[in-house]
Amino acid sequence: MAATVANQVGTREKLLRARGAASKLAQLSTAEKNALLLSIADAIEHRADSILAANCEDVGSSGLEGAMRDRLLLTRPRIQEMAQGVRDVAALPDPIGETLAEWTRPNGLKIRKVRVPLGVVGIIYESRPNVTVDTAVLALKTGNAIVLRGGKEAARSNQELVKIIAGVTGIPEGAIELLDSSTRDSVQELIKARGLVDVIIPRGGAGLIAFVTENSSVPVIETGAGNCHIFVDESADFDMADRIVINAKTQRPSVCNAAEKLLVHENIAGEYVPRIVQKLIDAGVEVRGDDRACRLANNAEIEPASEPDWGEEYLRLCMAVRVVANVNEAIAHINRYSTKHSDSIVTRNESNARQFLRAVDSAAVYWNASTRFTDGAEFGFGAEMGISTQKLHCRGPFALAELTSSKYEIIGSGQIR
Amino acid sequence: MAATVANQVGTREKLLRARGAASKLAQLSTAEKNALLLSIADAIEHRADSILAANCEDVGSSGLEGAMRDRLLLTRPRIQEMAQGVRDVAALPDPIGETLAEWTRPNGLKIRKVRVPLGVVGIIYESRPNVTVDTAVLALKTGNAIVLRGGKEAARSNQELVKIIAGVTGIPEGAIELLDSSTRDSVQELIKARGLVDVIIPRGGAGLIAFVTENSSVPVIETGAGNCHIFVDESADFDMADRIVINAKTQRPSVCNAAEKLLVHENIAGEYVPRIVQKLIDAGVEVRGDDRACRLANNAEIEPASEPDWGEEYLRLCMAVRVVANVNEAIAHINRYSTKHSDSIVTRNESNARQFLRAVDSAAVYWNASTRFTDGAEFGFGAEMGISTQKLHCRGPFALAELTSSKYEIIGSGQIR
Repeated sequence: MAATVANQVGTREKLLRARGAASKLAQLSTAEKNALLLSIADAIEHRADSILAANCEDVGSSGLEGAMRDRLLLTRPRIQEMAQGVRDVAALPDPIGETLAEWTRPNGLKIRKVRVPLGVVGIIYESRPNVTVDTAVLALKTGNAIVLRGGKEAARSNQELVKIIAGVTGIPEGAIELLDSSTRDSVQELIKARGLVDVIIPRGGAGLIAFVTENSSVPVIETGAGNCHIFVDESADFDMADRIVINAKTQRPSVCNAAEKLLVHENIAGEYVPRIVQKLIDAGVEVRGDDRACRLANNAEIEPASEPDWGEEYLRLCMAVRVVANVNEAIAHINRYSTKHSDSIVTRNESNARQFLRAVDSAAVYWNASTRFTDGAEFGFGAEMGISTQKLHCRGPFALAELTSSKYEIIGSGQIR
Repeated sequence: MAATVANQVGTREKLLRARGAASKLAQLSTAEKNALLLSIADAIEHRADSILAANCEDVGSSGLEGAMRDRLLLTRPRIQEMAQGVRDVAALPDPIGETLAEWTRPNGLKIRKVRVPLGVVGIIYESRPNVTVDTAVLALKTGNAIVLRGGKEAARSNQELVKIIAGVTGIPEGAIELLDSSTRDSVQELIKARGLVDVIIPRGGAGLIAFVTENSSVPVIETGAGNCHIFVDESADFDMADRIVINAKTQRPSVCNAAEKLLVHENIAGEYVPRIVQKLIDAGVEVRGDDRACRLANNAEIEPASEPDWGEEYLRLCMAVRVVANVNEAIAHINRYSTKHSDSIVTRNESNARQFLRAVDSAAVYWNASTRFTDGAEFGFGAEMGISTQKLHCRGPFALAELTSSKYEIIGSGQIR
């Protein structure tokens, strides 16, 4: 079987092939890359049946149900969407080759800073097979080779998708490599391959991300964990606050930009806490609170929050409420407990809003909007590789430009020091 | 003694103080930061005697001689230079607060990407005490707290310098912290302090850098190692090639942008190899060569190079010479063996030069110039934190702008998804 044969090639050999492909990919023109992307989109459509068959095996043997099964499941419309996503990426501007800066030194040296591919990008992810296609095409668009280590539940789907993409005429050998998902050894080899791999992007749960960031010797872009806050200030429009809190908490509770914590200014807490707690409960949310919030909401079903609650990313319909003295206390609480992802203030007070925007040390800080907008598509990037919660290289939603590095090309006429 | 007391404060406590200082530093205005920098410059000048006394103890007890002693040694002119360096940084533009991008989404959300400090920057370095001042002021200028772990030979000099800087009125407590240099424990704690420290920059020898990059769970900017190449193409102006090779090899052989390897096009090797080998030997350089270079230079004292030579950074007056078939073979050799730092082609052939500039995967690629120009000051940056040889975050010489991150400030009017 093809799958078995693929797995017999060791991780290191795949990384070496990717390294070799990287220098070829870096030299492709924009037109060449876009033509390959369009061929990939066509191939995905033409091979929908084989993708569905592989996925059906994965879903059948996974034993997953509900939301987890749904994440793994591919359907004809989803494959169609995948192919369209590839065409969308083909239509985006190519960042490679862009002149980022250019100047001439007094000694006559002409210095040009130019955008180049990173080289080899490693992705470690969990069950969703669409990540396989999304990340492969973003890598190809930016002239990078990609090494994928997906989840074992999606092994057959991923193998089929990678076979289709790698089989497109003109794709250099090694441009897309899929590692063995049946063992953690391949993760270990990937994250220790400093020199062969230029960056690792883990996409998945907190456990996966912590493991990779703690153990990788390859530079990592940390993505994802979001313990996001909404602070309802004294002067907030309560109706707006309701809409934002309910949306940020309930519209899609399993994602990183969903809100987990609600801070309420003490001067309005007497009125606003019981009101919002009831609305949250009506929306099916389990509510926890600090002492004051619990007292104020004593008629509603609210549980006392414990210290670990303030740092936890629930990723489900649960929210903890805390009463704070003012915007300063809200900022201090957020900077202490948040994962530096997305936090929002609801207020009519511009001065408080400006202070909050400036002082909250998070990737995305909002004034009068839901935290749910921290997303490549919502930001208008046309694609998304992830949401960085670290400060190095990129922060917040990132896409094509962040899959690049730069180099200096310097032209002289014999200059020496 | 103050030094002993300082060391009694544990590493973790110092990191927590730095974390606390970071949020204060991030809020300082440009004028406030520049005023602090000018006060630091004055304090360094006024306290020259105590700096010299501390340094004298360090030099006396180090047992170092020659170049190593010179790296550790401070003199009155060097302290004056240090103070001037601080004033130069005060005069540079402040990158913090700069709007990097700004746009409005169709739903009315106003998104602004703004430059912010990284937070807490950790520096691990070796003997030169001027690094203490240089890095501390670059960090202050960019609103970052800094945690320094210097070499033990310079312990007293570093303690005195940090005491002077931290003692300037207005510097937040924790803005500059010096870790215990008498044990490696402080390095271990620093590189594992993910969440408290935002980036580690190792500055020093290859062993130090490898240790930090292999073991740090905090994101690292890898600096320094330079196995730099010069390729003398068929059409090179021999006089220019001589000047560039001799300069790049001998002007300061101990630094990372010095050339270590010379590649010569086979069509000119018969004439050029004996010529340049003789010049290198005359300049005191130990020369090694591949079989062809050795045969061509048979009258000169040249030793056969072995495989490890091609990957080695000599950092001394030694150079290995190899004959290559053409520009493609030169590029392939460089991309295989170089540390992706700085590489140069000497040629009159523009097409070969363009190909070399594009295809050599290094931070700085030169046409007809010495590799010795890869340097913050030579690039006109007015300051330098290091030279990055990784591709994430920054590549090549980096200074103020690279000590920053970004955040998104998003202003809405109640938008929800």
